[in-house]
Amino acid sequence: MPELFPVSDRTRVVREANRAVYERDAIYKILDEGFICHVGFAVEGQPFVIPTMFARVGDDLYFHGSAASRMIRGLSSGLPVCITVTRIDGLVLARSVFNHSMNYRSVVALGQAILIDDPVEKRRALQAFTEKLIPGRWNDARQPNEKELKATSILKLPLTEVSAKVRTGGVEDDAEDYALPVWAGIIPLRLVADTPVRDERCDASIATPAYAADFTR
Amino acid sequence: MPELFPVSDRTRVVREANRAVYERDAIYKILDEGFICHVGFAVEGQPFVIPTMFARVGDDLYFHGSAASRMIRGLSSGLPVCITVTRIDGLVLARSVFNHSMNYRSVVALGQAILIDDPVEKRRALQAFTEKLIPGRWNDARQPNEKELKATSILKLPLTEVSAKVRTGGVEDDAEDYALPVWAGIIPLRLVADTPVRDERCDASIATPAYAADFTR
Repeated sequence: MPELFPVSDRTRVVREANRAVYERDAIYKILDEGFICHVGFAVEGQPFVIPTMFARVGDDLYFHGSAASRMIRGLSSGLPVCITVTRIDGLVLARSVFNHSMNYRSVVALGQAILIDDPVEKRRALQAFTEKLIPGRWNDARQPNEKELKATSILKLPLTEVSAKVRTGGVEDDAEDYALPVWAGIIPLRLVADTPVRDERCDASIATPAYAADFTR
Repeated sequence: MPELFPVSDRTRVVREANRAVYERDAIYKILDEGFICHVGFAVEGQPFVIPTMFARVGDDLYFHGSAASRMIRGLSSGLPVCITVTRIDGLVLARSVFNHSMNYRSVVALGQAILIDDPVEKRRALQAFTEKLIPGRWNDARQPNEKELKATSILKLPLTEVSAKVRTGGVEDDAEDYALPVWAGIIPLRLVADTPVRDERCDASIATPAYAADFTR
């Protein structure tokens, strides 16, 4: 049996419950393939949703806080947070407009974030951000010094209340619509990398590393 | 002079203020190119961030509500909402880890959403969702009937408090790092469509429409 995250009233998928995913490995995979997360928090009742970089290390989500000092102030004082990671895999063209959909994978994690103080843990989080996006880059680039670690705000959300919602597969039309002379199918979508653009101040004698030349996701 | 959205204390970009965008046309463009939005709302202090389909019609954002009945209940009672739309355009590989970044475009809109009741307006919103993603599809597919319109929950957020944050361009390293023998540059990223996959119950005599065969974004 796959190991599941415990389901709470707040993470149980109610609508389209057949799309719910609680398996730990499946949720890890969606998180690890995501480029950015959207962080939600509320200040005096007004929600804010901010995109930022993140990485999973074990059962912790680290995310970058410098995008908005409002976020750092709010979350480091223990405000509840929601982190959502979404991938779009395709457009679903049904015969009826009503049954049009998207194939997607989405994780929602709830809890309270902790502001990281320890420079060793900050460093580990920055390494995870870097290696998650561009495996191999951490050892090539100049690593952060003490001053930079101090200037970096990183928050951690332990993964406790978390669930995913996934739509895969084909078109689902109403029975009577299958006879319609309307094209139906999936348009698969994926993120691709184009040829890297060398910084104009980067000498041509420095070879483009494979992780940039052959970047795939 | 380009027309600007008015700036409020809540939408003013404070961190990295040089990336702030308030021009109406630039914000429209980011919204119109986005595939999905992330909707943030808070219930008893706990924020939730839900990905969903959306479309802009004039100065209104319509978004799909069926993803979570919690969202519909909360937002249709006038809860404050935040809608964020984010595109990732590239990875920025600086010589130092600290200066690594992403090129992105992101819009944040705040306000109170209105649940749409009028079937004519619902129909217009569904048409906007469809045509935004797949121009031409609305007229090909079977359009929604009365029952389907009733079963569809659509919310509207008037665009009043809105701002964008955009990073474009190249690497920015610390002066003393330019001499390091580290490759630096941009890895451009974009979403592409693969060959459409015909539904197995879609007769081969029905030609693949150009909007599916040549889908681009």
